[in-house]
Amino acid sequence: MTIEDKAQPRSARPDRLRLGMVGGGQGAFIGAVHRIAARMDDRYELVAGAFSSEPDRSSKSAAELGVASDRAYATYQEMAEAEGRRDDGIDVVAIVTPNHLHYGPVRAFLEAGVHVICDKPLCTSLDDARDLVDRVDRSGKVFVLTHNYTGYPMVRQMREMIASGDLGDIRVVQVEYVQDWLSTKLEETGQKQAAWRTDPAQSGAGGCIGDIGTHANNLAAFTTGLKLESLCADMQTFVEGRRLDDNCHVLLRYEGGARGMLWSSQVSPGNENGLKIRIYGTKAGLSWHQEQPNHLDFTPLGEPPRLITRGGSGAGTSAGRVTRVPPGHPEGYLEGFANIYADAAELMASIAEDREPESDALLVPTVRDGFDGMAFIAAAIESSRRGGVWVRPETLVADV
Amino acid sequence: MTIEDKAQPRSARPDRLRLGMVGGGQGAFIGAVHRIAARMDDRYELVAGAFSSEPDRSSKSAAELGVASDRAYATYQEMAEAEGRRDDGIDVVAIVTPNHLHYGPVRAFLEAGVHVICDKPLCTSLDDARDLVDRVDRSGKVFVLTHNYTGYPMVRQMREMIASGDLGDIRVVQVEYVQDWLSTKLEETGQKQAAWRTDPAQSGAGGCIGDIGTHANNLAAFTTGLKLESLCADMQTFVEGRRLDDNCHVLLRYEGGARGMLWSSQVSPGNENGLKIRIYGTKAGLSWHQEQPNHLDFTPLGEPPRLITRGGSGAGTSAGRVTRVPPGHPEGYLEGFANIYADAAELMASIAEDREPESDALLVPTVRDGFDGMAFIAAAIESSRRGGVWVRPETLVADV
Amino acid sequence: MTIEDKAQPRSARPDRLRLGMVGGGQGAFIGAVHRIAARMDDRYELVAGAFSSEPDRSSKSAAELGVASDRAYATYQEMAEAEGRRDDGIDVVAIVTPNHLHYGPVRAFLEAGVHVICDKPLCTSLDDARDLVDRVDRSGKVFVLTHNYTGYPMVRQMREMIASGDLGDIRVVQVEYVQDWLSTKLEETGQKQAAWRTDPAQSGAGGCIGDIGTHANNLAAFTTGLKLESLCADMQTFVEGRRLDDNCHVLLRYEGGARGMLWSSQVSPGNENGLKIRIYGTKAGLSWHQEQPNHLDFTPLGEPPRLITRGGSGAGTSAGRVTRVPPGHPEGYLEGFANIYADAAELMASIAEDREPESDALLVPTVRDGFDGMAFIAAAIESSRRGGVWVRPETLVADV
Amino acid sequence: MTIEDKAQPRSARPDRLRLGMVGGGQGAFIGAVHRIAARMDDRYELVAGAFSSEPDRSSKSAAELGVASDRAYATYQEMAEAEGRRDDGIDVVAIVTPNHLHYGPVRAFLEAGVHVICDKPLCTSLDDARDLVDRVDRSGKVFVLTHNYTGYPMVRQMREMIASGDLGDIRVVQVEYVQDWLSTKLEETGQKQAAWRTDPAQSGAGGCIGDIGTHANNLAAFTTGLKLESLCADMQTFVEGRRLDDNCHVLLRYEGGARGMLWSSQVSPGNENGLKIRIYGTKAGLSWHQEQPNHLDFTPLGEPPRLITRGGSGAGTSAGRVTRVPPGHPEGYLEGFANIYADAAELMASIAEDREPESDALLVPTVRDGFDGMAFIAAAIESSRRGGVWVRPETLVADV
Repeated sequence: MTIEDKAQPRSARPDRLRLGMVGGGQGAFIGAVHRIAARMDDRYELVAGAFSSEPDRSSKSAAELGVASDRAYATYQEMAEAEGRRDDGIDVVAIVTPNHLHYGPVRAFLEAGVHVICDKPLCTSLDDARDLVDRVDRSGKVFVLTHNYTGYPMVRQMREMIASGDLGDIRVVQVEYVQDWLSTKLEETGQKQAAWRTDPAQSGAGGCIGDIGTHANNLAAFTTGLKLESLCADMQTFVEGRRLDDNCHVLLRYEGGARGMLWSSQVSPGNENGLKIRIYGTKAGLSWHQEQPNHLDFTPLGEPPRLITRGGSGAGTSAGRVTRVPPGHPEGYLEGFANIYADAAELMASIAEDREPESDALLVPTVRDGFDGMAFIAAAIESSRRGGVWVRPETLVADV
Repeated sequence: MTIEDKAQPRSARPDRLRLGMVGGGQGAFIGAVHRIAARMDDRYELVAGAFSSEPDRSSKSAAELGVASDRAYATYQEMAEAEGRRDDGIDVVAIVTPNHLHYGPVRAFLEAGVHVICDKPLCTSLDDARDLVDRVDRSGKVFVLTHNYTGYPMVRQMREMIASGDLGDIRVVQVEYVQDWLSTKLEETGQKQAAWRTDPAQSGAGGCIGDIGTHANNLAAFTTGLKLESLCADMQTFVEGRRLDDNCHVLLRYEGGARGMLWSSQVSPGNENGLKIRIYGTKAGLSWHQEQPNHLDFTPLGEPPRLITRGGSGAGTSAGRVTRVPPGHPEGYLEGFANIYADAAELMASIAEDREPESDALLVPTVRDGFDGMAFIAAAIESSRRGGVWVRPETLVADV
Repeated sequence: MTIEDKAQPRSARPDRLRLGMVGGGQGAFIGAVHRIAARMDDRYELVAGAFSSEPDRSSKSAAELGVASDRAYATYQEMAEAEGRRDDGIDVVAIVTPNHLHYGPVRAFLEAGVHVICDKPLCTSLDDARDLVDRVDRSGKVFVLTHNYTGYPMVRQMREMIASGDLGDIRVVQVEYVQDWLSTKLEETGQKQAAWRTDPAQSGAGGCIGDIGTHANNLAAFTTGLKLESLCADMQTFVEGRRLDDNCHVLLRYEGGARGMLWSSQVSPGNENGLKIRIYGTKAGLSWHQEQPNHLDFTPLGEPPRLITRGGSGAGTSAGRVTRVPPGHPEGYLEGFANIYADAAELMASIAEDREPESDALLVPTVRDGFDGMAFIAAAIESSRRGGVWVRPETLVADV
Repeated sequence: MTIEDKAQPRSARPDRLRLGMVGGGQGAFIGAVHRIAARMDDRYELVAGAFSSEPDRSSKSAAELGVASDRAYATYQEMAEAEGRRDDGIDVVAIVTPNHLHYGPVRAFLEAGVHVICDKPLCTSLDDARDLVDRVDRSGKVFVLTHNYTGYPMVRQMREMIASGDLGDIRVVQVEYVQDWLSTKLEETGQKQAAWRTDPAQSGAGGCIGDIGTHANNLAAFTTGLKLESLCADMQTFVEGRRLDDNCHVLLRYEGGARGMLWSSQVSPGNENGLKIRIYGTKAGLSWHQEQPNHLDFTPLGEPPRLITRGGSGAGTSAGRVTRVPPGHPEGYLEGFANIYADAAELMASIAEDREPESDALLVPTVRDGFDGMAFIAAAIESSRRGGVWVRPETLVADV
């Protein structure tokens, strides 16, 4: 291994994509993350936005972000229409609004012929999700759902190792996403993130299960390739008066016989963003923790456990492709997020250039993953409402 | 803190108890552990035994262990009778046989007026368990079940902190006991431990759930004081041809509203004896891992996480009482086990001396904990057999 | 704490600084890091460069990086002159060449009235270093040395805690920077990074001591504020035929009585970029590891150790100011590096706007830190060459 | 691997050795540790003692420990004489007094024909040390110095791996033993351990260097087999008014070219018993930490780091021999200490039975290791007193 070979930061490209943004104005959290992610590899330039439902906030945000005032829109509808008409209109839009404001913008920009990068969960109902799958399919446009954790090099590494048989047949999946920030009724203090995430009108029917449980479920699916057959959920709302779940216990049964457990919580003191996965097969185990994302524990049966590090000698090509700096120089959340943006750029470039994309760029989460997430949420809620019975998540007819 | 004050190894006592043993001959594992545990604080002297069902093995073991040949018995029945008659007969017997050989010896030695220390699980059926509760109650003898992990200082510390309200109201319990040694069909290789632990005739109806799942369930109950209300289990036998479960996923509902998840597995590569517990309340969290037993993570909501170390400034009186060496000098499995033996000795001494025992000695697991373990196993098996439905474990009538 | 308050990614600015670069063409490592760091907060736009001493490579790199061909220069001299003349000439230059090519460019761009961001170590001789201090002082320009580790939020946190007395009087500093990539004679394989870093003509008289030992020394000085009084070094070249040191053991004496040890190595298998510091005072200790940079261990005497996390409740204002994402979402090497760039931008803006800079922006390493680094290298080499005697590093007369 | 094969607790032996003890009465610390260590494997029975220099305390201690009153002696001289005359006199004595009371008892018991187990450091002067080497050699008796950390299975594993060439040629040794309990002037509070350990009349000329620095030095020698050629020490007394060193920085040069650093401290808040060693060779590295003694990191150059666990698949025969319980069930300080006692018993048995001992029993630290420790202390003190110059530790003439 040489530092040079393994960890060359990807060179920037002069041909930046024109990026628009819906949401992400002052006081928002995830919008700024998307912007840094987009900038990291120099493939995007932010040129337009409907940054807030409050016009004043939107134009102020635009000014701060260096977006020309005539491309700071009051509504996403107006933006989709205007940008769709411009010769130098945006190539792609990032939708970073609360969940109830995903469906409308996705639909509007697809109709305007714009690629879409959209926050998760996909939307707020299974019907809308099904509709969006159909619309994306017909549009010919790139649609990327920011299940951003799939962008971490060591997550790609897990997928590659499992796909290549390093674990044998998967038996057990243990996945969890645990936080503590909603341990008290933060939504009553004016904290904006807490307010919308615990409000069914903005979040949809799922609270914790939709906000972070879907990340856990997606991570398990992404790394193992397993399909969820049924689940049994016991969901709680521990903080009195809260309107959505804040802790979820879920048993999982996968097609082919693997079994799993999923825990998501926002009321467990001492946990910041504890997304962890442990996967066990007939031949070996793997475990990974988002808070130490550059390391991966690989435990072949009957051999000493091994530490696989990003950029290190145990890392494969899939991880190497999304590695920017040498081993021991940690990459983090923003770099993982940026990998999703870089792969999305590659997909769009492949269309523009009428060529096959790099195969790993196809790993980015799609609208189908968005549908699966919505089906997972719906099944968990139904299971728990019925007292904790086994429920089979819906699937797309086309997939059957 | 001074090393002297916090960590004085407990002084040995001249008044050793006369100890007998059933099981634990050559080739056994847990018998030797019991013997070291008994010796650690110099409160016991091994003087008699029925070490094996094979008479030759039993007498050979006796010779090795320094037990006089006339007190090496061929059967536990013979031993109970003979020792019960001797003036210098054993004070207490340790029963370290496979599960199906617990009930008989417990009953025989109680009838012979001998205190009993017995391995877990208590026996192999709920009816037997109920009967033993009754027999112990009537006997006036000490009965200690070696749920040995409750002897770890940091486990006592967790119990003390939770009882004193440091966590507020408990909301979530995550507990697991994970191993890998049965990932293949080891029982077919002649490995004795694997053979009996996967044999329903010797283990009872539970495999993994009985062998280690009960430890996890007991640890949750011991530390939190919560009572299990109902559970939903999904149990698997991953190794083909195995006759008992080797992986168990269980959802837990406790009285009062706390919820939990329990995972026990013997087929997860890379796990040796991964007994871990994480407990979250309204005010704080605690987490502990058996493989690093001298450390405890305490995470008060809204404050930096704190590390509580055995013997360190954060440790309380309950942990201090069972601490032998200074902080930073690790104690382990044998010391924790020995604490159970030391507490059992204290209970017996208090009876002999007609006085109250030290209150912490009453923390040792009893026949009632044994019953709860059997009820847990039975409920999990029933739940899983019925496809994963919610089942309420049986309770002792007297407790209702 | 709210996610919103603690971890708002800093908004991008429309008023980007025009950035030029010397070095950093194809095959280089650190140039790409500088470019990402510059982009992270959207305060810079790369518009010119002399990317390589090979003109063809330089212009190819320019094309890849979106730099106009008329601003891709063959030499830094040409670039300094041309950019100095342009109305829209660069505001600032990043010098990312091997060490022997620092002095010339720094001097040329200062003379051209351009701010300078320069890689460490400052140059290759103490005389040059002294000269550069003088030149920077007279120029009125911003000069920032990329001792990038000082940009990590938790490193700023250490500095703040020590300055505010949380540790009491410092007694002991243990610092190390350990790698393994030069365990074999990699410089003979054509690996470019290894080649120049082990070549005295390009690196200067220090190998490991200059490449990473200076980072360790700087980190100790930055966090504690202590001034080095004398040192005793034992340096080795373990790989046969290598021309510079690859392992360095150094004893440190600080003014005021604190004592320390410094270890830097590039031949210790299993270490990637193991930069660690542990600092002990009369009241508490602190320890930090670059490979897990979001965590800081704080150990007040006689109290349980506490974990301070980036963005968490124990983090102060200095760390909070350079935090982009919520606690539990790891930031890494690039974000720390970007903080240096953001602070440099703030310093330049404060000059342009004729106002005081944010006080924390003054924490960026300066040319004086560069001089101290050169004095450290020189003293270590002299000490070791003389068999390991105590040597007092040179200081700037102005400082006496 | 099977639990049975790898981790059979060693069976107890009926032929217990008769053990006497000098020191270790009420209020002592290490005496109780020795007693537990002696009991662990049932090879010793404590039958005599001079437990304290205060006769009343000695006889009270004897009573508590079950030692007959006629074998509770007022002085070690009386004890050596009386026991030497008895037919059933002690086979071996454990000397667990402060350092200044090692030489006399060792000499007396050797003269009485009794084997000796003695605490470290060996004595308080190099002359005494040299004399004891000679006396032991002439006595034909077993002499074991309780550098107890060499009894840890993973420490034996390190030695085995290095001896077998797994690391290639050793280049660098980093070793440290760090505590915090003397960060304040504890010796003035009446704390007995602090009082004698900081008193030159009882400790000898070394404070921290003798108390724990010798352990670090011995650990490096034991695991690597390297011989110390010279050292350069910078020792401090940070606590005002303390009479001995409490923090020591030492550079090490080994014969053959390896280099090292040694840090011992008793004033570094947050450290309990932080004995750590890291060893790097041309082919791989090893690191071990006494507070997590069951794990060993093995880092072959160019391969993923591996975790070797006590009892696990990576552990060799030397570690396996001193392993009592299965992997994942932690062993600790007392078990490591007990391994020294078990090996001492094996050496004594081999003499009694006129046979070769098990070869690994010869690994126990001897009087020669004791001499080397005294030479290390003396050299460090001389080096530091002369301002930090390089000093060659004395060696035994016989070894030259």
